[in-house]
Amino acid sequence: MFSFELLANDKAARVGRLHTPHGAITTPSFVAVGTQGAVKAVSAQDLHKIGTQVIIANAYHLHLQPGEDLIEKTGGLHRFMGWEGPLMIDSGGFQIFSLGAAKEHGVGKIASIFPGEHDRGGHLSPKKGKPLVRVDDDGVEFISYLDGSRHRFTPERVVEIEQKLGADIMLPLDECTSPLHDYRYTRRAMERTHRWATCALEKFRCTSGRNQALFGIVQGGAYRDLREESAAFMGKLDFGGYAVGGSLGSSKEEMCRVLEWTIPLLPHHKPRHLLGIGEIEDIFQVVKRGIDLFDCVLPTRMAGTGTLFVKEAKRFRVHILNAQFTDDPRPIDEGCRCYTCCNYSRAYLRHLFMAKELLAVRLAAIHNLRFLESLVRQIRTAIRERSLSALTREWM
Amino acid sequence: MFSFELLANDKAARVGRLHTPHGAITTPSFVAVGTQGAVKAVSAQDLHKIGTQVIIANAYHLHLQPGEDLIEKTGGLHRFMGWEGPLMIDSGGFQIFSLGAAKEHGVGKIASIFPGEHDRGGHLSPKKGKPLVRVDDDGVEFISYLDGSRHRFTPERVVEIEQKLGADIMLPLDECTSPLHDYRYTRRAMERTHRWATCALEKFRCTSGRNQALFGIVQGGAYRDLREESAAFMGKLDFGGYAVGGSLGSSKEEMCRVLEWTIPLLPHHKPRHLLGIGEIEDIFQVVKRGIDLFDCVLPTRMAGTGTLFVKEAKRFRVHILNAQFTDDPRPIDEGCRCYTCCNYSRAYLRHLFMAKELLAVRLAAIHNLRFLESLVRQIRTAIRERSLSALTREWM
Repeated sequence: MFSFELLANDKAARVGRLHTPHGAITTPSFVAVGTQGAVKAVSAQDLHKIGTQVIIANAYHLHLQPGEDLIEKTGGLHRFMGWEGPLMIDSGGFQIFSLGAAKEHGVGKIASIFPGEHDRGGHLSPKKGKPLVRVDDDGVEFISYLDGSRHRFTPERVVEIEQKLGADIMLPLDECTSPLHDYRYTRRAMERTHRWATCALEKFRCTSGRNQALFGIVQGGAYRDLREESAAFMGKLDFGGYAVGGSLGSSKEEMCRVLEWTIPLLPHHKPRHLLGIGEIEDIFQVVKRGIDLFDCVLPTRMAGTGTLFVKEAKRFRVHILNAQFTDDPRPIDEGCRCYTCCNYSRAYLRHLFMAKELLAVRLAAIHNLRFLESLVRQIRTAIRERSLSALTREWM
Repeated sequence: MFSFELLANDKAARVGRLHTPHGAITTPSFVAVGTQGAVKAVSAQDLHKIGTQVIIANAYHLHLQPGEDLIEKTGGLHRFMGWEGPLMIDSGGFQIFSLGAAKEHGVGKIASIFPGEHDRGGHLSPKKGKPLVRVDDDGVEFISYLDGSRHRFTPERVVEIEQKLGADIMLPLDECTSPLHDYRYTRRAMERTHRWATCALEKFRCTSGRNQALFGIVQGGAYRDLREESAAFMGKLDFGGYAVGGSLGSSKEEMCRVLEWTIPLLPHHKPRHLLGIGEIEDIFQVVKRGIDLFDCVLPTRMAGTGTLFVKEAKRFRVHILNAQFTDDPRPIDEGCRCYTCCNYSRAYLRHLFMAKELLAVRLAAIHNLRFLESLVRQIRTAIRERSLSALTREWM
């Protein structure tokens, strides 16, 4: 039930159509992030109106709460969250390893991953100086940030969870390294990720029907030889598509180099996903290099703090709480046709944020999501018309 | 542009139609509370689908933030909040006086009215032991809970604010007494409210066109002679309708008695509003006694904590976070046709609340609001069919 057609290209950038059992995705496509089975304050109906084509949820989060068995029992994640379109599920490797790496490197990610009540009845509590995450060749053990309970993920177990959730597209367990890991560790983690990919694919072949696809994830940090090795290794395995994951280096230039090393070694006729980007500038850069799908928490995360996408501003964003918007009767973005821009002023949005009204976040999320959908639509048109450079210049 | 037709009755209960410049309201009608120009996480479009007929906002809150001049400048509150239907605006007398009364009686309302940052640059800070609210015969002075700035409301000023906001139906400044005020004070406050009503009506006549209506508010606490005096006084003034305000006593029986004393003295052919009720049981009680409109923060406030209306439960509500709903595949209420009940299970709602997803509150608010709309629709039908007693027995 899966297939990927390439419809047009402008140099390395391409327009395609990815057919899934829950409908087709025209690529390049933005993938909205619904980690816990909800996209911020936005309902499935809103997403449909926004034009969202595909959502990505997270096996790690949904395993911890409410659990894949419960979701399977109530009819799968599509039905659970009322979303009838294509659904990707990430393993949550990034979330698991960012705990360990943050602790090891003291980069402070633990605070954001453990908001508050992390020490109830914990087995591997950070306060007791024990590791949060233990990785071995067969999988990874970690404690729940919710109740301190101990969990173990193996590549096979993650496929099983994703099957129960009813993913259209699933991502296997991978070991994510941080930009602070050295070459030696990054190689070791990559090799482990490769072994895990083989295990996941084997499990997938034995147990998944034709209703689900498994993507391979390329690792290797910002090291050229590792990225090339990983892309070549993954490219030889018969995945339904490929994702570029892990650390993309510490600058936009490094990210572009990683894609330039990686993409030529992946099968041309399979979809390519980039995990976790979403600055407007980045979208142009990665699509230009042949990325078909990218997920991005930015539009919804920004919405929570009143930061809104606009075409005509520095870094394409304004902070709606700024005093300059107090009595601004204009919509957030003059060219946007989203529900928020069609019905409300900047002054009203600012008032809602000032007054801490929940409606604020929803209206902001609708705008940011639609803004990105509208941008990728323009990008697709430009690729078909072989005018992506012109569109890039218009925006940059 | 205002008129009120009585269409049917079942004893004292009645069905009517209140025509306003922004459309007609079929009564009895629930009035959704949008204090700060937003009904929780629910958009104007959601409200339209829910069947909400009329919203009540608050002059006190909107005066403090973002200010009536700003709203007037951007086209009035209807346009500001994207709501095209009838709009009531309460003076906020209740909010102002609950500050003073809470302090005086030590009943702890200050905490809920002053959430957190109330002491920045305050002139009349409670910490300095000065009064928060000073009432005199001409009006009331109070400090902003937002920035400690000093404000003065007079009956004329409140009409002016409500005119600027563009209310269809406005409520004049009144002095709200608490159930703990004695007879002597309640009488004094009532007399002041009567004088203010006369001033407000005079101001309204001189400055409002036929696009706005002013309702008179009956005060008098739980004292029979005061309520009768107040109803008779207000009933003689040519208001567009009447509201019953202030303390309705400390039990449901007292509330019913207050209505029984009051309503027969109000003009039969004018609409009657009851300020601030909304338990399911109360709705039956007050409609039965001839109330046409009632506003109620309960459905949206309950939504914030995961408390949901259902027909078959104690006090018509369930707390969705209870463990019993963990894997419950049913909709919140089997008979409800709201967006939430048509698309989501109790298990999903519970998960959203557990996971602190903002979507939870919106879906809960949609359900609770629609549940009440559906109830008042049933009540209207029952009145037309002279079967309100049977409907009441079915529910109670």
